[in-house]
Parts: sequence; structure tokens; C-alpha cells
Amino acid sequence: MHIAITGAAGFLGQRLIHRLLKRGELRGEPIRRLTLIDQSEAATPEAAGVEVVAQARDITAPGAFDALLDARPDVIYHLAAVVSSAAEADLDLGLAVNFDATRALLEGCRARGLAATRLVMASSVAAYGGELPEILDDMTALQPQNSYGTQKAMCELLINDYSRRGLVDGLVLRLPTIVIRPGRPNAAASSFASSILREPLNGEEAVCPVPTELELFVMSPETVVAALLHGAEVDGEAIGAFRAFMLPGITVSVAEMIATLREVAGPTAVERIRHDPDPRIQAIVGSWPTRFHTRRAEALGFPRDTDFREIVEAFRVASTS
Amino acid sequence: MHIAITGAAGFLGQRLIHRLLKRGELRGEPIRRLTLIDQSEAATPEAAGVEVVAQARDITAPGAFDALLDARPDVIYHLAAVVSSAAEADLDLGLAVNFDATRALLEGCRARGLAATRLVMASSVAAYGGELPEILDDMTALQPQNSYGTQKAMCELLINDYSRRGLVDGLVLRLPTIVIRPGRPNAAASSFASSILREPLNGEEAVCPVPTELELFVMSPETVVAALLHGAEVDGEAIGAFRAFMLPGITVSVAEMIATLREVAGPTAVERIRHDPDPRIQAIVGSWPTRFHTRRAEALGFPRDTDFREIVEAFRVASTS
Repeated sequence: MHIAITGAAGFLGQRLIHRLLKRGELRGEPIRRLTLIDQSEAATPEAAGVEVVAQARDITAPGAFDALLDARPDVIYHLAAVVSSAAEADLDLGLAVNFDATRALLEGCRARGLAATRLVMASSVAAYGGELPEILDDMTALQPQNSYGTQKAMCELLINDYSRRGLVDGLVLRLPTIVIRPGRPNAAASSFASSILREPLNGEEAVCPVPTELELFVMSPETVVAALLHGAEVDGEAIGAFRAFMLPGITVSVAEMIATLREVAGPTAVERIRHDPDPRIQAIVGSWPTRFHTRRAEALGFPRDTDFREIVEAFRVASTS
Repeated sequence: MHIAITGAAGFLGQRLIHRLLKRGELRGEPIRRLTLIDQSEAATPEAAGVEVVAQARDITAPGAFDALLDARPDVIYHLAAVVSSAAEADLDLGLAVNFDATRALLEGCRARGLAATRLVMASSVAAYGGELPEILDDMTALQPQNSYGTQKAMCELLINDYSRRGLVDGLVLRLPTIVIRPGRPNAAASSFASSILREPLNGEEAVCPVPTELELFVMSPETVVAALLHGAEVDGEAIGAFRAFMLPGITVSVAEMIATLREVAGPTAVERIRHDPDPRIQAIVGSWPTRFHTRRAEALGFPRDTDFREIVEAFRVASTS
């Protein structure tokens, strides 16, 4: 089993590598090789019996995937992307990285006859937009109101078509907002969703820029990684007529998130959250859909977090261990 | 008013040119210039006060749109496309003509600051697919099951994003099945829908390859052209959050089509239809959605045929005049 990962140095890529090496197998076959692609060389963890190779690549450069695809990987996790704020700031960059590189990857698979290679790509809730129904489902239109979501939606269509034509075995998973991300607050509009839990749990201050009644559709890092593993293993024939769908998140309000923090870490932790409304962030995050019937993902056995308290407790255990 | 039309030599292009020249104005301004683009030079009808120029272009060639866009057209009708059967037979050709050329057109508008240029593109019912609800609406997902529909859906997303970013003023209209097309039967799966009316009305034999209970979502050539005119004139601000939607067709069964033929042209005409089931055509046409709530198009004032009899009578008048 040879697994390739683009965006391997990122948060999700690193978690996925860790879990794959711990597991040792995928699709019932021992993992023999991991190829890690990122802009700069990703760290190559030691693992007995696994050849871990890092390739530093600009994935927008011609032939960037040649060496990778010539080795005929069994599974490709395509996680490399320009994030939403950067794609909005630079249309050319977003199109090149998020769309053209994905197309090049598909073409590379096609040229080499990698019809059986499972290509798993991450898409996003940002692909939704427009006049959305109260509860979205697998047949809700993608009418993105940002360039990142547009580029992801275009990739979904292309991966679906290449898969339908038998040129690759693709699958695109739309990810909920990931909570609790490790690290520090960043420029992402959703940064606060992790920050208002992570910082207080670490004894630090956090800023909440949105009203507490605001809801989010979230998934824990552990469950996202479990979903990525399942995405490599789920039967292609069972996926159905379209190779992209939303993963099962859980809907929580900021108030519920804070109440959970209080249960887990006490009132002192909650007092570390400063409420400082930011209309810009409210406008962006408030436009994201938060209620989904994710029937396709559930029917295919994709995991869901059981409750929000478990997410918070898992983070606390991980960060103190 | 300078209007450019790609695919100008095609059936829709020709109808549109005829109507534009007859009308003499668009968006309240007299038409001074028509630029007609197609693979071979389109016919250039004479019209007083209108400069009609034909450009023979391979729209997949670099710079194919340069001369056109340098002249800063006010309205561009982008009708050029590789049809569904050809796009399915040749993925590269379909992507090049249906997607890459559209992207080049958008980039050309962006590079020249043609933010106010209204770009009207034709999309298709072929963009729908998958597990469709009984009645589709403006928020039904596009999950195309063919490469043509995939490429059109990708163009919709890109035109929406370029319009949202203020780089062009785009609009994509998803067309119902056009009935009654002039001409002869062709290889299109929907060819019979025009043929079973057109040939008997012309005193010729026709073949009906589908069960008479099969339904279609249709629009007359006159109404499609009226919709294209309206598409150039509708207020961009009023369009809403997504720049693509289905046009209002009417749902008719083949049995109703034949009954209308009987009303208009008598039993002798109906006897000219030979029923010869073709499972391949049934499978394709039977998968097309036929019932839509087209609220967005209706709210924006796009026209709908009033009844099927008018469509048949209009064809008879046109073909005998």
C-alpha cells in the first residue's frame, strides 16, 4: 500500500500521517510507502517497514506530480489548498492551486491509467451559499459566494466526471468546521471557534467576536482524520451517482460551546473569554450553513462525533498528555 | 451597442442574430455592431446602420477572443459549445471548448476591465443528474452524469465567481429541450422530440423511439431567443446570489405532443409517426428532469411558452410562410 498526501505539512496532513503510521494498514494492506508532498519538505517520521519520502513541490509547476504518479500510488489524499482568505485575495493563485493543480493531478492519473487509485480530496462548507434552505441535504445546490468555495465546487465536478469515466476512483469530502484545532489563533474567520476553547483550556485569554447564539457545524480533528481513512476504504460502487458530499458534523451554538467549557474546565476557564463583537467575522461565519441531513455520508458509514463534550475532553487529554 | 455572439453559425445563434437585427436595439440602445464568431465564417446579413463582422476562429486557440474583446463589446452571447455526445466521446475536446474557452473569455474580459459587459451563456438541463427530487428548483444540486453537463456546471461556477468579483457581468441560462427545431433528424438523443412533429407537419415520416408516457421539459425556439434577449437586459443587481438558473419550460408528455399534432394537423399527420422503441434513447432522455419550479427566472421576468399548441402552430406558420 503506497499512500501519497499533498499538503502533508499542514495540520490535517500531519494528523493523517500520524494515524496512518499508527494503524499500519489501509484497505487491509500493510502500508509500505508514504509520499509526502508540500511546498517545503514535510517531516518524515520513522516507521518500521514504511518508506517515508518527502517531496518539496510547487504543485502549480508543470510535472509537479510526475514522480509521485509514476510510482503509481494506491491512495492519494489531496489536501493541498490555498485557504479561503488567500483565494479571495488572489484569484489567480486560488485557481492555480485549488483548481488547476487538481486538474493536473486528475490528468496525471488518467495518463498513467491509475483507474483504481482512490483519490480523496477535501472540500468545504464554503462551497455552499446563496438562498439556502433551513436544513441542507445531499441535493442542495452549491452556489458559493467566495472564490475558494467556487474552486472546490469545480474540483468536485471534475473529480466526479473523471471517476464516472473510470479514469480515477475519486471521492470528495466536504468538511465541517474543525474544532478544536491545535496551535494559535490565525486570520481565518473561523479561528475563534477553536480559540475560545483552546486558549481557556491552556490558561490563556481568548476573544469571542460573534453573538453566543451563533451556530456552527463542527467536527473534531480525530473524526475528520477517521473520515479521511474511511474515505480511502469505502466501496466506490456504493458511493452513488455523485462523488462528493458533506460529512456528518454536529450543530452547536457558541453558547453551548461555552457551557461545555464550563462543565469540563470550570467557571475560571469561561472567564478567560472576552466578548468583543466583530461584524466582519459575524457576517462571514453567520453565512455558513449549520444544519444538514448528511444521509449519503451516514449510509456509507462515515463517522460523526457523539457530543461536543467529548470533543473538548479529547483536546484536554491530548494537550496535557 | 456592440453585441458579440460565439457559435453564431449555429441554430440558436442564427435565430438570435435575425431577431436582434429585426429589433434594432438592445438595452434601449440602437445596435451598431454585431461580431459573429464561429469555426467557419458565419453569414453576415445586411442591416441598415449595423456593421456586421464575421470572425472565423478556433475558440480553443490562444488569443482567439483578443480582437473581439479589444473592441469592448457591451453584450457577449457565448453559445459556442461541443454538444453532449461529442463531449462524451472526447473529454479533451469538451474540456477545451466548453470549459477552457469560457475561462479564456472570462480572463479576456477581466484583463480589459470589461466589468460592465453582460456575458450571457447557455447551459443545459444536462447539468442535472443524480438522485433528483420529483420537482426541481433553483437550489437543486447539479450532479451531472455526463461530461457536457459537468463542463457547463463548471462554467456556471466560474462565471458566477467572476461576476461576484465584479470582473464581468455574467449570467448563465439553463435551457430546456428546444422544440420544434428546424432542419433534419440528427444524432442527438432528443432529436425525436422535434422530429415527431416537424416531419409529419412537413408531410414526412418520423420515428418515435420512446414510450408515449415519457415527459419532456421544453421551450420553443422563439421563447429561447426571447429569453436570450431578456438575459442581456435583466438588471444584474436583481439576479441574486447565483448567476445561473433554469429557464421556465413547459412539461409535456410525448402523448400530449402527438395529441396536439392531431389537433393542429389532423389524424393523417399522426399516422406518419412510426413507433420503434430504442432503449438507448429511452435511457438517456428518460433520465432528464422534467418538472421544475423556476422561481428565479420567473421573478426576473423570463418568458415561458403559454401552451404546447402554440409552439406547434408557430412552427407551422413559420414553415409555410
